[in-house]
Amino acid sequence: MTAVIASANPKSSIQIRPIVSALGLMLCAIAAAMVLPALVDLADGDPGWRIFLASSVATLFVGGLMVLVAHDDRPVRLGLKEGFLLTTLSWVFVAAFAAIPFVGLGLSYTDAYFETMSGLTTTGATVIVGLDKLPRGILLWRALLNGLGGLGIVLVAIIMLPFLRVGGMQLFQTESSDKSEKIMPRAYDIGLATAAVYFGLIFICAMTYGFLGMSAFDAICHAIPTIATGGFSTHDSSFGFFQSPGLEWAGTLFMMSGALPFVVIIKAFRGSPQSLLNDAQVRGFVSFLVSVSVILALWLVATRGMPFFEALRLSAFNVTSIVTTTGFASTDYAAWGPFAVGLFFLLTFVGGCSGSTAGGIKIYRLQVAGILTRSHFLHLISPSRVITLVYNKRRLPDDVPFSVVAFLAIYMATVGLFTVVLAAMGLDLVTAVSSSATALGNVGPGLGDTVGPSGTFAPLPAAAKWVLSAAMLLGRLELFTVLVLFRREFWRG
Amino acid sequence: MTAVIASANPKSSIQIRPIVSALGLMLCAIAAAMVLPALVDLADGDPGWRIFLASSVATLFVGGLMVLVAHDDRPVRLGLKEGFLLTTLSWVFVAAFAAIPFVGLGLSYTDAYFETMSGLTTTGATVIVGLDKLPRGILLWRALLNGLGGLGIVLVAIIMLPFLRVGGMQLFQTESSDKSEKIMPRAYDIGLATAAVYFGLIFICAMTYGFLGMSAFDAICHAIPTIATGGFSTHDSSFGFFQSPGLEWAGTLFMMSGALPFVVIIKAFRGSPQSLLNDAQVRGFVSFLVSVSVILALWLVATRGMPFFEALRLSAFNVTSIVTTTGFASTDYAAWGPFAVGLFFLLTFVGGCSGSTAGGIKIYRLQVAGILTRSHFLHLISPSRVITLVYNKRRLPDDVPFSVVAFLAIYMATVGLFTVVLAAMGLDLVTAVSSSATALGNVGPGLGDTVGPSGTFAPLPAAAKWVLSAAMLLGRLELFTVLVLFRREFWRG
Repeated sequence: MTAVIASANPKSSIQIRPIVSALGLMLCAIAAAMVLPALVDLADGDPGWRIFLASSVATLFVGGLMVLVAHDDRPVRLGLKEGFLLTTLSWVFVAAFAAIPFVGLGLSYTDAYFETMSGLTTTGATVIVGLDKLPRGILLWRALLNGLGGLGIVLVAIIMLPFLRVGGMQLFQTESSDKSEKIMPRAYDIGLATAAVYFGLIFICAMTYGFLGMSAFDAICHAIPTIATGGFSTHDSSFGFFQSPGLEWAGTLFMMSGALPFVVIIKAFRGSPQSLLNDAQVRGFVSFLVSVSVILALWLVATRGMPFFEALRLSAFNVTSIVTTTGFASTDYAAWGPFAVGLFFLLTFVGGCSGSTAGGIKIYRLQVAGILTRSHFLHLISPSRVITLVYNKRRLPDDVPFSVVAFLAIYMATVGLFTVVLAAMGLDLVTAVSSSATALGNVGPGLGDTVGPSGTFAPLPAAAKWVLSAAMLLGRLELFTVLVLFRREFWRG
Repeated sequence: MTAVIASANPKSSIQIRPIVSALGLMLCAIAAAMVLPALVDLADGDPGWRIFLASSVATLFVGGLMVLVAHDDRPVRLGLKEGFLLTTLSWVFVAAFAAIPFVGLGLSYTDAYFETMSGLTTTGATVIVGLDKLPRGILLWRALLNGLGGLGIVLVAIIMLPFLRVGGMQLFQTESSDKSEKIMPRAYDIGLATAAVYFGLIFICAMTYGFLGMSAFDAICHAIPTIATGGFSTHDSSFGFFQSPGLEWAGTLFMMSGALPFVVIIKAFRGSPQSLLNDAQVRGFVSFLVSVSVILALWLVATRGMPFFEALRLSAFNVTSIVTTTGFASTDYAAWGPFAVGLFFLLTFVGGCSGSTAGGIKIYRLQVAGILTRSHFLHLISPSRVITLVYNKRRLPDDVPFSVVAFLAIYMATVGLFTVVLAAMGLDLVTAVSSSATALGNVGPGLGDTVGPSGTFAPLPAAAKWVLSAAMLLGRLELFTVLVLFRREFWRG
């Protein structure tokens, strides 16, 4: 790709050509990915391979056409507006085609699109009941959707979002984007390193899962959603199917690794492992997980009489699954009583670290909000005092505080708005508010009998599924990337 | 009162004397107020008068003692820290003594304190079932608690909070506090005018209620909670008891007037009625109420087959009751289906105008948040553009945006935290989240069978009642006024 992302020129109109071209390339990649499940079904003697092959050909045709039509030899300069548009359209467009195999298998297009968007946003909410009986091709396809979406969002979060300055992501401008308004020169290197870490983690995770007793297929189909923090499983009872303490602890650790900032992981691999220990976000994330898991475990011991280590394992796995926005379940924690339900509802909002595959509000925003709150109290007590805001040993850039807090406010308002819209479609309040929160946070399970950890999204009305697909997209792209497209100013010349 | 509120001197320690003295004076006023229900019970031949008289004597004794002990001839200078401490302690202390008559009537101290804090914060949530059969003295006392709390908070909101700069209230610094760091010179005048408007509105409201069919006692005991947006009623079925369309429309209008900014009402009375029309907050508030009421009415027509004007009356009354944080109910809107339930849940957060008796997030904060969001989107699209933030035809002071958004974030976080704490006490999620929100917003009714519009807070565990009392106080004093006391920095020399 020879694109150069440059500063926006508000005078120039949006360049459509490079966007069409990039979208076409993505469709070609999706078409290629569809060959994998086709091969699996072919090997299994399942007729599903025709569906995947046909979907692949159709997708390749459209994608190829788009690349050809938009071909242009001149060097391409992607501006801010093109960046916003391309990022949003990527998910919308890719989901539209990646959904085709599900339609071939009998789902309505609504269900197929919901399932695909859920996969590509690494949400992991499903409308399919009876996973255990499905052909392996479609199960692999679901895992691949998680995998592609996870890789996509890490790349976008590391390369694109800091440049777009949404929701405080400018805090994570790497050397390549720092000060400069051009991003590409080093983006290629960073992208390559990120992909290497991503596939490396999936590989180690799959080996571990296999070693601990999963079949090779299950190991692959769970390793990908684990590192992608997506949460699609090949079993209706999710991780609970395996009934293996060892696998649950391994899952806990690998879900955590998928929710760590990939840039810091890269640094750690490049010879400074202390980066992981010194990073404020990593420290905050890990200590949050540990303390919440221990508190919930003690609660389980006290109120349910569980042995401590069993309680800790169940608590750590499910807390980590929700906070990392993976959404695997090892048990129905909704049966743990109101405190657990209330706690898991709150955890739905937290999220993992920035520049990872995790969704949600994210640890650094909560940390920045904490720093701001503290300084605000100091300001109230001593109005004349000058306060320097420091995060992760660096002075907080001037526009970060507002970006972060605006993100928090819009995040909560969006959950509220989606709740009312879903309630208007007939969902009860718990289902409405928890499915809004779980979709926006890309977590997966909600609360209540329908969308809770032991249910699925299948019974929801079609309109609600489209609304939730939109919520997943909004959450995945940190709200602003999508919302900015609905501003009149965006489309002015 | 000869106190002068001056800028904080961070070097000086907190002055306790003037705080004790002011609290003592408040207790004396409460003791005097207790004589009114005593007289009513005496006239009715109800033995309750002894309880009120005894409570009055005890309160007067403690209050008088505090005034005497803390007496000091030197002029008093109240600093920032003293302002925070006095404001918070006022409600905590006054509630402790104003609760005594309820104990005399057989309530536990927990229930008595909850009921009193609910009254003084103009929340209106109740733990008493069987209001219709209670002696008139205690019914009047409940109305008076609403009345005293309403007057208290308007005065605090107009005089104290802009000076304390909490949650963007610095936007409403009047001429007296503008630029200057001393507030008292004109505070006395403003306080007097505010009280005059307050009592004037209660008088007109009571006359109207009486004219439309309420008994004199009911008219007074509903007029006070209407203007105080408190919502205590003399009947278990609240406003629904009267079954009078005329009264409901009157109630709608007077609840609105109690939630208008009193400073603007004063201006309107002083010869510029166009102030009300030109004020951004008033316009936003009224148009929000009208549009939400009409939308809900249309929904009721469409889904319940109600005649439009009946639907509009029901919708307008109950929407206004929640948005103004009054909490009267004319019908059980929880039975209107999931959309209405979701909508009323969201409305619990909105609140009335600043410097009124209403609680909640408040209209101006939502408007400022809207302006900030819009400018943030502009900033994302054109990073180099310089954007001037204007609210109500004036440039937004530099520290307001952050104050407002920090308030929003902490407000939502507080609701979340209280939800989990209440869930840990065994409340189901809907009860936990809606009672947190309704207590923090000083609204009154929550959702669900227990705390919904047709229930009471009586069945909640004692610990939950204390937690909710704390939430009512936090919400009433705009969070920061209370929370700042929990910072170590506050207590440092």
